[in-house]
Amino acid sequence: MPGYERENIARMSGYTWGEQPRDGETLKLNTNENPYPASPEVQAALASFSVAELRRYPDPLANNLRDLLARKHGLTRDSFVVTNGGDEALRLALTTFVDPGDAFGMAEPSYSLYPVLAAVQDARVIKIPLRDDWSLPRDFAAQLNASDVRLACLVNPHAPSGILLAEDQIAELVSEFKGVLLLDEAYADFIDPSFRYDAHRLVRAFDNLLILRTFSKGYSLAGLRLGYLAGQESVIDPIVSKTRDSYNIDGISQALGAAAIEDVSYAEDTWSAVRNDRRMVRDELTDLGFDVPSSQANFLLASVPMDCRHSAASIYEELKRQGILVRYFAQDRLDDKLRITIGTPEENRDLVDALSVLVR
Amino acid sequence: MPGYERENIARMSGYTWGEQPRDGETLKLNTNENPYPASPEVQAALASFSVAELRRYPDPLANNLRDLLARKHGLTRDSFVVTNGGDEALRLALTTFVDPGDAFGMAEPSYSLYPVLAAVQDARVIKIPLRDDWSLPRDFAAQLNASDVRLACLVNPHAPSGILLAEDQIAELVSEFKGVLLLDEAYADFIDPSFRYDAHRLVRAFDNLLILRTFSKGYSLAGLRLGYLAGQESVIDPIVSKTRDSYNIDGISQALGAAAIEDVSYAEDTWSAVRNDRRMVRDELTDLGFDVPSSQANFLLASVPMDCRHSAASIYEELKRQGILVRYFAQDRLDDKLRITIGTPEENRDLVDALSVLVR
Repeated sequence: MPGYERENIARMSGYTWGEQPRDGETLKLNTNENPYPASPEVQAALASFSVAELRRYPDPLANNLRDLLARKHGLTRDSFVVTNGGDEALRLALTTFVDPGDAFGMAEPSYSLYPVLAAVQDARVIKIPLRDDWSLPRDFAAQLNASDVRLACLVNPHAPSGILLAEDQIAELVSEFKGVLLLDEAYADFIDPSFRYDAHRLVRAFDNLLILRTFSKGYSLAGLRLGYLAGQESVIDPIVSKTRDSYNIDGISQALGAAAIEDVSYAEDTWSAVRNDRRMVRDELTDLGFDVPSSQANFLLASVPMDCRHSAASIYEELKRQGILVRYFAQDRLDDKLRITIGTPEENRDLVDALSVLVR
Repeated sequence: MPGYERENIARMSGYTWGEQPRDGETLKLNTNENPYPASPEVQAALASFSVAELRRYPDPLANNLRDLLARKHGLTRDSFVVTNGGDEALRLALTTFVDPGDAFGMAEPSYSLYPVLAAVQDARVIKIPLRDDWSLPRDFAAQLNASDVRLACLVNPHAPSGILLAEDQIAELVSEFKGVLLLDEAYADFIDPSFRYDAHRLVRAFDNLLILRTFSKGYSLAGLRLGYLAGQESVIDPIVSKTRDSYNIDGISQALGAAAIEDVSYAEDTWSAVRNDRRMVRDELTDLGFDVPSSQANFLLASVPMDCRHSAASIYEELKRQGILVRYFAQDRLDDKLRITIGTPEENRDLVDALSVLVR
């Protein structure tokens, strides 16, 4: 007997989230969380929050937070919409810009949530393969245009490889692309400052660019669900005033998000620590025979040595048996690799030690 | 120049939310918040929450909360999906059950968000007028079926009148209706217990029934954004596993929601106080010449006396000038009425005093 749900919903599969054990003992290097907790200022904001304030609806526009974001990125309040994590930002972009049956574009491989959200919207998914070194094919925008893509999502630094696309390449792409480009900067906080990467500068130049950021990784607030999109008012306003749920951001998240931004220097110290450890872990994995591209995110994509007696799948299983979770993707081009989140120095040490036994 | 947004989005108007002044001085009787703060147990749960927990993703299924809801309503965990306020539940029902171009049904007048969410989904809206006494026309289900309605939303107690539809009428309606009926019980906590109303008993009998509840009103947590849907697993599972954002409920909301349910007796005391004051305010407004139907919600719909020198619109404006906010709807059948939230005894007194001067 058919259910009541729409045909596209009945047909599709849901998103498979990374395992989230609650045992407190698992070494969790599988879902790219920041290894360090949020700022004490965030804890102070929580401690001083009165539930009596929750009796009333929150600010529907989260304007205090938008003003702080405007200052941070050198844009105006109306350039921002705050969302329930990056996931809601992605969903809202699809809802706002892609009609059912229309084309949604993405690089392949990429964040596995994109095609799931496109399936909910009943959009056609155009997957454009990345080159062997995970860079974009030169004709990426031309391919998107040829398929009449209305919205394309591009994660930068790339997931799961960590490769960074340069700002001028993005500018070229946005300028050629006829739809809306959503640049998913979920991991941008971990980019080495020496790159002087700042794609928000492009917002003023292009009316078809949306940039996604999240508090989940950089600010150690994955559990809070807070993200945002930046763009020109013409692409932000339909989301703010029409497609978004009116009270999408609760009062506590607005207060804690503001505290996190105001104490950005605390978060920056965690980014810097992660960068240092990323370099060390990469060196050690390389010494063990793994092939690991240079990553600007808080994770590494490690190809298992050709001569290793274990497959990536069996290393994943063996690590899990030892209480260490990493991410394994059973899909083309990734099934000989593991995606490993950078943890604390101790966690990284345990991971490398476990791997060195397995590949010896 | 046309924007990048979909045509239906460009064409539609967004939701107009009730005014949310932050001055702390306005007497706010316009958006049906509970006049009493949440339980001290909720404050205790907040005080003991460590932001270090937010470093990790929350439980994607909010299972602790679902187990508490299952116990509360005598159903199973799989009968529930937790949402960001009732608004997300409404949106998800549209996303899951209504194809663009298909029909969405509602009674008129009703919650003004329904047609907005239907417009986002590009659904056709079938509005079926309520009778003069705000009761449903006898052929309501037949009218929905005649228009091939896939999903209908019915708020009970009715907003903005507060009229309660009996459980057996709902059963009859669901049994006749060929689509999914979403029974929006946003205000059900304020129903007089003497009615022995409990529509959740119907969930076991009907596979096309969804019941919406929210923590916003009954639990004084409008600022937290927490609601839920109950239904058979066949209608709940597509939402849980496919159309919902995977991590839609943040960790703090899960903890505070659980604390609120576990101390339900505290909330029940506030419901009881609101019921008492609802009766008194209704009597006083009736004495002033207003016509006020018997309400089972935490608000009253008051028709301005025919011989009053002020229109409802001008009373709304005059009250606002005095720092008292009530809700005025400039629409057919409501433009001679005011919707007034039940406040604390002092707030109700101030409201009645102000009105008595205006209608004298």
